[in-house]
Amino acid sequence: MAIQTVSGKSSKEIAENLAIIFYENAADRDLKGGNPKLERDLIRESGLLKVLIPKQFGGWGESWTDVVQIVRLFAKYDSSLAHVYGYHFVNLITAHLWGNKEQQEFYFSETAEKNLFWGNAFNPIDMKLYARKEKGNFVLNGVKTFCTGSVDSDYLIVSALYENQDHQQFIAIIPTNRQGITVNEDWDNFGQRQTDSGTITFTNVMVKKEEVLQNGLDSSEFAKLRLNISHFILNHVFLGIMEGALEAAKKYTKTKKRIRTPNNDSVTGDPIIQRHYGEFYVQLEASKLLVEKTDTLFERLWNKGEAITEEERLELNQAVYTAKAFTTNAGLELTSRMFEVMGSRATANQYRFDRYWRNMRTMTLHYSIDNVIQQLGEWVLHK
Amino acid sequence: MAIQTVSGKSSKEIAENLAIIFYENAADRDLKGGNPKLERDLIRESGLLKVLIPKQFGGWGESWTDVVQIVRLFAKYDSSLAHVYGYHFVNLITAHLWGNKEQQEFYFSETAEKNLFWGNAFNPIDMKLYARKEKGNFVLNGVKTFCTGSVDSDYLIVSALYENQDHQQFIAIIPTNRQGITVNEDWDNFGQRQTDSGTITFTNVMVKKEEVLQNGLDSSEFAKLRLNISHFILNHVFLGIMEGALEAAKKYTKTKKRIRTPNNDSVTGDPIIQRHYGEFYVQLEASKLLVEKTDTLFERLWNKGEAITEEERLELNQAVYTAKAFTTNAGLELTSRMFEVMGSRATANQYRFDRYWRNMRTMTLHYSIDNVIQQLGEWVLHK
Amino acid sequence: MAIQTVSGKSSKEIAENLAIIFYENAADRDLKGGNPKLERDLIRESGLLKVLIPKQFGGWGESWTDVVQIVRLFAKYDSSLAHVYGYHFVNLITAHLWGNKEQQEFYFSETAEKNLFWGNAFNPIDMKLYARKEKGNFVLNGVKTFCTGSVDSDYLIVSALYENQDHQQFIAIIPTNRQGITVNEDWDNFGQRQTDSGTITFTNVMVKKEEVLQNGLDSSEFAKLRLNISHFILNHVFLGIMEGALEAAKKYTKTKKRIRTPNNDSVTGDPIIQRHYGEFYVQLEASKLLVEKTDTLFERLWNKGEAITEEERLELNQAVYTAKAFTTNAGLELTSRMFEVMGSRATANQYRFDRYWRNMRTMTLHYSIDNVIQQLGEWVLHK
Amino acid sequence: MAIQTVSGKSSKEIAENLAIIFYENAADRDLKGGNPKLERDLIRESGLLKVLIPKQFGGWGESWTDVVQIVRLFAKYDSSLAHVYGYHFVNLITAHLWGNKEQQEFYFSETAEKNLFWGNAFNPIDMKLYARKEKGNFVLNGVKTFCTGSVDSDYLIVSALYENQDHQQFIAIIPTNRQGITVNEDWDNFGQRQTDSGTITFTNVMVKKEEVLQNGLDSSEFAKLRLNISHFILNHVFLGIMEGALEAAKKYTKTKKRIRTPNNDSVTGDPIIQRHYGEFYVQLEASKLLVEKTDTLFERLWNKGEAITEEERLELNQAVYTAKAFTTNAGLELTSRMFEVMGSRATANQYRFDRYWRNMRTMTLHYSIDNVIQQLGEWVLHK
Repeated sequence: MAIQTVSGKSSKEIAENLAIIFYENAADRDLKGGNPKLERDLIRESGLLKVLIPKQFGGWGESWTDVVQIVRLFAKYDSSLAHVYGYHFVNLITAHLWGNKEQQEFYFSETAEKNLFWGNAFNPIDMKLYARKEKGNFVLNGVKTFCTGSVDSDYLIVSALYENQDHQQFIAIIPTNRQGITVNEDWDNFGQRQTDSGTITFTNVMVKKEEVLQNGLDSSEFAKLRLNISHFILNHVFLGIMEGALEAAKKYTKTKKRIRTPNNDSVTGDPIIQRHYGEFYVQLEASKLLVEKTDTLFERLWNKGEAITEEERLELNQAVYTAKAFTTNAGLELTSRMFEVMGSRATANQYRFDRYWRNMRTMTLHYSIDNVIQQLGEWVLHK
Repeated sequence: MAIQTVSGKSSKEIAENLAIIFYENAADRDLKGGNPKLERDLIRESGLLKVLIPKQFGGWGESWTDVVQIVRLFAKYDSSLAHVYGYHFVNLITAHLWGNKEQQEFYFSETAEKNLFWGNAFNPIDMKLYARKEKGNFVLNGVKTFCTGSVDSDYLIVSALYENQDHQQFIAIIPTNRQGITVNEDWDNFGQRQTDSGTITFTNVMVKKEEVLQNGLDSSEFAKLRLNISHFILNHVFLGIMEGALEAAKKYTKTKKRIRTPNNDSVTGDPIIQRHYGEFYVQLEASKLLVEKTDTLFERLWNKGEAITEEERLELNQAVYTAKAFTTNAGLELTSRMFEVMGSRATANQYRFDRYWRNMRTMTLHYSIDNVIQQLGEWVLHK
Repeated sequence: MAIQTVSGKSSKEIAENLAIIFYENAADRDLKGGNPKLERDLIRESGLLKVLIPKQFGGWGESWTDVVQIVRLFAKYDSSLAHVYGYHFVNLITAHLWGNKEQQEFYFSETAEKNLFWGNAFNPIDMKLYARKEKGNFVLNGVKTFCTGSVDSDYLIVSALYENQDHQQFIAIIPTNRQGITVNEDWDNFGQRQTDSGTITFTNVMVKKEEVLQNGLDSSEFAKLRLNISHFILNHVFLGIMEGALEAAKKYTKTKKRIRTPNNDSVTGDPIIQRHYGEFYVQLEASKLLVEKTDTLFERLWNKGEAITEEERLELNQAVYTAKAFTTNAGLELTSRMFEVMGSRATANQYRFDRYWRNMRTMTLHYSIDNVIQQLGEWVLHK
Repeated sequence: MAIQTVSGKSSKEIAENLAIIFYENAADRDLKGGNPKLERDLIRESGLLKVLIPKQFGGWGESWTDVVQIVRLFAKYDSSLAHVYGYHFVNLITAHLWGNKEQQEFYFSETAEKNLFWGNAFNPIDMKLYARKEKGNFVLNGVKTFCTGSVDSDYLIVSALYENQDHQQFIAIIPTNRQGITVNEDWDNFGQRQTDSGTITFTNVMVKKEEVLQNGLDSSEFAKLRLNISHFILNHVFLGIMEGALEAAKKYTKTKKRIRTPNNDSVTGDPIIQRHYGEFYVQLEASKLLVEKTDTLFERLWNKGEAITEEERLELNQAVYTAKAFTTNAGLELTSRMFEVMGSRATANQYRFDRYWRNMRTMTLHYSIDNVIQQLGEWVLHK
């Protein structure tokens, strides 16, 4: 439930105000790419980075459902900002899931107090970063890729391999401005262009032992939730993109679309145009319900904490995967087909309407949809 | 919430027991077609025809959600019985929606006491039945088509045109055994073969004035719900058919399917088979959520009774239409594609697995899906 | 090129006349199933069983393209008869592909002279028939499944395993009335109901050594064509079913379909109905071109005879597989969707319009479409 | 049939050499947009602008099939250049179709001699250009939109409305450097970025009476072909884009794609990857055949010249529309789905692989696909 903040506005109202600001130049920033410093600072100042942090540590003590509603709202108007905002929480919460009590308290308090923005250097594939033990602490050398939200971040969640230990992972939290860290600002992909998902180079970066998270992914079912949270959040970005695309298309259809020749009626009275919108709506509605189902499921599991069972976590996983598979297909279809209810003039770059497809296409490759569908099928066959 | 009945079993348990019995010879009865007298009597005896009737009138006082869960369960194993069972309530409830206080009480009590089964002669298209006023009462002559559940029914909801009054409808409740009524037992279509959806001939059928429902469809928003209830119930039949088809396919795949040549692994380890099941599951899950959303919505509206607004009813209508559009497409796809995870031997008539497609195809034509999608689109464009 | 026969009619004209006769009771015979003895005899009498046999052996010396045009035409009106007629040639031609000179001449001459109808006992999967050598001849014992066209056939192509030799196949041509052969007439599947694709039991069946085909599948690239011919012919059945379905739908739409409520115009002026037909047409046209491409390719290869190379045969195989993959999907879609341009009354069993889907669904499982698509992809990736 | 040119190379070889050059910086030029002056001059110098011009006028006397093979080849590597190259011929041929003998000869000779590049100011929708008669000549004032290939063109085909005559069209050929013509170089859309399809402003532009084409669209069936030629050429651009996309994807899959986790085999041995390529191939093959069918049909009609009938032209139109409808859907699907066989790293802007979708999406809106499908359906229902 969204609460009243010091400003007298709820987190939802604050987010809505920000979203309007983001939307104004979202198309321009899509063209430019790079780091949305101004908008990131607006998020910092708004307090929205501490929505999820418990009140006892200075946060607003809201729920994951509140978080993902903001993510979805942002995604409707600017899916890059939605992505880095959502991932802020995946990163922040890692200290809570995998850290000890001191770490949990410290990072929550520190983040709430200073409105810190978390990025990552965590991509589990393509491991080329190594940690060497040195006098009780550690030294990092190497490179990480797909470091979403790293530019202009305050803290980084870092994963590396222990030198000479291929399988055990080293996980730490490091201030982004730590000596030896070079955030390369080299993300230049066709979608999600302001997510700063480029590379980071680590050159003799010192990590103190109290920055290392000792409990890893496998320490408990609760700890394993981190994997699911990432997909859970991205699904809300997918859904938000779809909602934004449909809204943009509808506005264009109603104000600018030309009447089709074989149709003597109005644009909105055209049976074929209506049919398209009917089909779009049905797919969007199914997407909504599949994503929203995971809100309820995840909230329940989160509140159970360490008490959750493997079965419960797998149930969540199937629901999140199902939502991911569906929204990926429906989202690609919608963002590609929306032009048929707008027409050729809607391809003008003054609108940059293609960004809905580019963003959807880029982000839905984050994790292979083929894997998701196959794993769902395997599970269906064996349950 | 399902309650305990006299037998000590909940309505859900009773329905599950019946469903198992129905399934045993469902394939045979699909071949035979005609009236499932034995199974209909089992439903009568089970008490399930009074699930929805308030306790004060001798019923079990359960909710619409309980009703449609039974419809969905029956549909999984025998969609003809699910259809006539679900329609029993649409017909029965017409007295409640459109009748006066005496009629409401009488038909509830009568039905609960005698476990009566309701059918219809109500098809609003193709009007060829006329009511003539005669000494305060009425006389019916003509024919009705698509009279689902009419054979072996106890009461019929009848719609006709007043003679010489093209637009005003005459609606009445008449015992099926009333003199002059001939239920022609002529339903012979390729799907839903035991729904007895054939024609009824009326020859000088007397209708007493107290059998006429004076409040028609347009008397209030609550009265208009009848239209929505019919779609609402059918959606649960669609969903049940899909659940039955997937269960049947899975059982066959796991026990009888041959290994594909290019795959060296087991059948259930085959990536392509897994992919099919993953895709089936995603579509079924979306279908479920869309249908279940209408359970909640409808239950809420039903409980508001005459207080519901046009806006609320339209919201329900859009949700029901959305579920209908989605399940129609997903259901046709599933019941046609399921054979690809079973193989050619699954076309043997000992299984009659084609009945899932035949039933889905027949029933989803009840109301044009093209209309549904177009109307959804029109609504999206104008809201 | 179709030639003039003794009757003064071309083979195409003869086939058209037969097709009209077949269509008259095709729906009734779909209901009845079993062996279409009368229609099979009409085919015998028409001379069409010898269309492909060279003139020097008493045949009409026409081309494979002539054969498959007849198959496609029959399939439009009765896909069971199309199937057994097409398979007659696959079976007959086996003697030509795998036999010695004497066998080639004998079976061509015999078939042409007596208008013999060939069936098979050839299913290469599920091998449960064994050949034992005995005094220079062979004795067969066991069972064969999916023996299309076996009932009322004159000759059977039989495949078996040599006893104690798991991999080498025994192939022979045997008169169906040979002692010890029991054609079980047990085909009862939901589609292709008059193809007699049931089982045959062999009890101590004697096979003379001159009935054995010594050159097997692997003797040359030309010999391998048998595999391709079977798919090649079935594709024409698929295409014919689609053509028949579209023609039946169109006739119904134009004469019986009711006007949709939101459409004030005529049925054929309804934009949504037009859209459906536009989509059907595009898919059918693509199907046609993919199938017809194989006509040209195959004809060319056939005429090269033993000179064909592996590369040429693979090129044909990819074309046949491509046509198969496309028509399977397009055909299932068309035969399921056609009801949306007809409406609910078209499900009446007086039409048996569901047989288009049932026939398409049954026959497209003959060989796994998943295999076909995967093998095409493998080939694309490696060429 | 491609002939030998002075250089000793066939037009096909010349085009292949150019295509390789274009491909080298196609991604860079997609980023930059604007006018590809260098590449256009290479086309001029190559002689390919006169491929279709009869030898008697100094051209190479090749066929439309030769032209569209070059268009398709260019489209594989740079669809903007393919588009303007193809449209050059639509524009050039207008003089032949609608002009008198002197105009036909003059423009053919002039173009062949000087390697002139033709653009258009012809968009028939959104008419805002007017022709005023003045002393036997004409003066143009107004604006034209979607003037493909206008920047750096030598001649423009211009359509306008006669002042005060709403329906009759004024058509003329004017040198692009005529005083008063301002080609605004303002095309900035998300696809087909180097087609210069922006606006042209006409300010008191003088048109001599001998520059006016007196025979309009309706003068004969042959004259009407201009409408069909435009779609005919664009279909080859669509097909070329698809071929380029599949080639690019395959190269990437084979050299850079990571192995999917649940698959222990190689990338190209992955059943799911193979399935994707199989599906891509089937759709591409159907696209090819539908487009190539129009090559044959159109060539035949072109060679008949003024002798063609309305029926023949409509037959061509249906074939062109069918190819357009199919390639639009298949092309959008392929260019969106291709990323699933490449993975997330393929979204890097070093590749600009999204341009296949952007180009396809932009160009397929040129004429409403909804209209195309509906018109096909209308035709199917009425033939």
